Amino acid sequence: MTRKPPLHTAKTVPLGCSRMRSMFLFYICYLLSLFLGIVCVVFVSYWNSYWRGGFAWDGSALQFNWHPVLMVTGLVVLYGNAAVLYRIPLTWSQNKLPWKLLHAGLLFLALLLSILGLCAVFDFHNAKNIPNLYSLHSWLGICTIALFAAQWTLGLAAFLLPCSPLELRKLLKPIHVWMGSIIFTLSIAACISGINEKLFFALKGNTNETKPYSMLPPEAVFANSLGVLIIAFGLVVLKILSNQRWQRPEPGQEEESSEPLLGRDR
Amino acid sequence: MTRKPPLHTAKTVPLGCSRMRSMFLFYICYLLSLFLGIVCVVFVSYWNSYWRGGFAWDGSALQFNWHPVLMVTGLVVLYGNAAVLYRIPLTWSQNKLPWKLLHAGLLFLALLLSILGLCAVFDFHNAKNIPNLYSLHSWLGICTIALFAAQWTLGLAAFLLPCSPLELRKLLKPIHVWMGSIIFTLSIAACISGINEKLFFALKGNTNETKPYSMLPPEAVFANSLGVLIIAFGLVVLKILSNQRWQRPEPGQEEESSEPLLGRDR
Repeated sequence: MTRKPPLHTAKTVPLGCSRMRSMFLFYICYLLSLFLGIVCVVFVSYWNSYWRGGFAWDGSALQFNWHPVLMVTGLVVLYGNAAVLYRIPLTWSQNKLPWKLLHAGLLFLALLLSILGLCAVFDFHNAKNIPNLYSLHSWLGICTIALFAAQWTLGLAAFLLPCSPLELRKLLKPIHVWMGSIIFTLSIAACISGINEKLFFALKGNTNETKPYSMLPPEAVFANSLGVLIIAFGLVVLKILSNQRWQRPEPGQEEESSEPLLGRDR
Repeated sequence: MTRKPPLHTAKTVPLGCSRMRSMFLFYICYLLSLFLGIVCVVFVSYWNSYWRGGFAWDGSALQFNWHPVLMVTGLVVLYGNAAVLYRIPLTWSQNKLPWKLLHAGLLFLALLLSILGLCAVFDFHNAKNIPNLYSLHSWLGICTIALFAAQWTLGLAAFLLPCSPLELRKLLKPIHVWMGSIIFTLSIAACISGINEKLFFALKGNTNETKPYSMLPPEAVFANSLGVLIIAFGLVVLKILSNQRWQRPEPGQEEESSEPLLGRDR
């Protein structure tokens, strides 16, 4: 693999007022995404431990509770953080390889958590003789994870294997970035429909313990708020991915397009 | 209002091979978006007329059936078509004002249908003493329509009122385009969660007429497919909006950013 020399942006491009302002805005968005990501993980964990009875791995409803926690943590929060990694200006003056490895490693962890999240719900369904993969939420979720697995494998082969030619990388990069944003957007839609579905299942109001969802008990307000937080996190991450000024500059590739979901094609 | 002279792209910019290829790809995507949009409207109408008993405006479940039809038609299909209107290269050589009026008119119709769709579900809920706005789907949907109404009103004031200054338009345009894509993405997430929710309500399997959702009766497969089609339509529209080469060129504004959801900020 031909290694590119590290970029010393501070030396080659003087930091003008506009650039400083852009970097300041980036760090505001980045800190916001970190904060919202942590709050999402705290909310989904608290919801399932406090209101849904906690966790187990025994085919019971407590095993199901891992599903939302692992999906929000892996497919949304870890995935989103891995996606914006290259945008951090502090890393631009360093060799890209360690950041590629961290990007791939975080996404591998995200994929692993998502697959564990799938196992949690499949085991629960199988133990209770509930069919798998019938709802629109499940169709969307399984397609998202299949795309994610294909994207990760292809990404490893194209961008980390030393034998992959540079021309192939150049060709695949915009597709990789575009697919990355698509998968992230689909995962958020899957989470929203999943939380909505779970609340209708859990809050039927047919026991003395729970009020129905339609009465908006505290659990419903809390879990709806989790949905709103996930959307806010998604919008901040997509905003970071979209801003071309926040893309890591590549030597000789300033004109190369590598825009996400809604980026320019060239 | 200072009117800009029409652009005669064919005269000023020779159509090279790359430009022809770009335009060809645009029309492929545009025709695909038109086709998918029509199929979405047919699917949502057929689902509610064939399996859900048709339509009425009497507070019954037949009134509820207007809700998905009006939301998919207005908030997704009409909205998406209005959003990509400026991207049609055939219109670039013409005065922009009639296309602005068509853009605003189509979006007004989309807003009207969405508000009618809201009335359908509110009337149904009120007639059956079902609380309004408790589910995550409804929170997402009502926020989307509120944002849409604000966006339309601000868009009218800023881009169609002759007294609005050019500087203000220049400032607001990227925000208007960005918000437009956000609203479209949120509306798709709201539709997916809504279809999922409706199928759990409708297909409980407690009558001889319907099998439960989990048994995937033909209605469930059909309505899940509607969800998949809506996502496909959304991705094609977002792809069209994202491609800078497909943006209507503005005289002296080639460098001005007006990118959607994931576009570049300047």
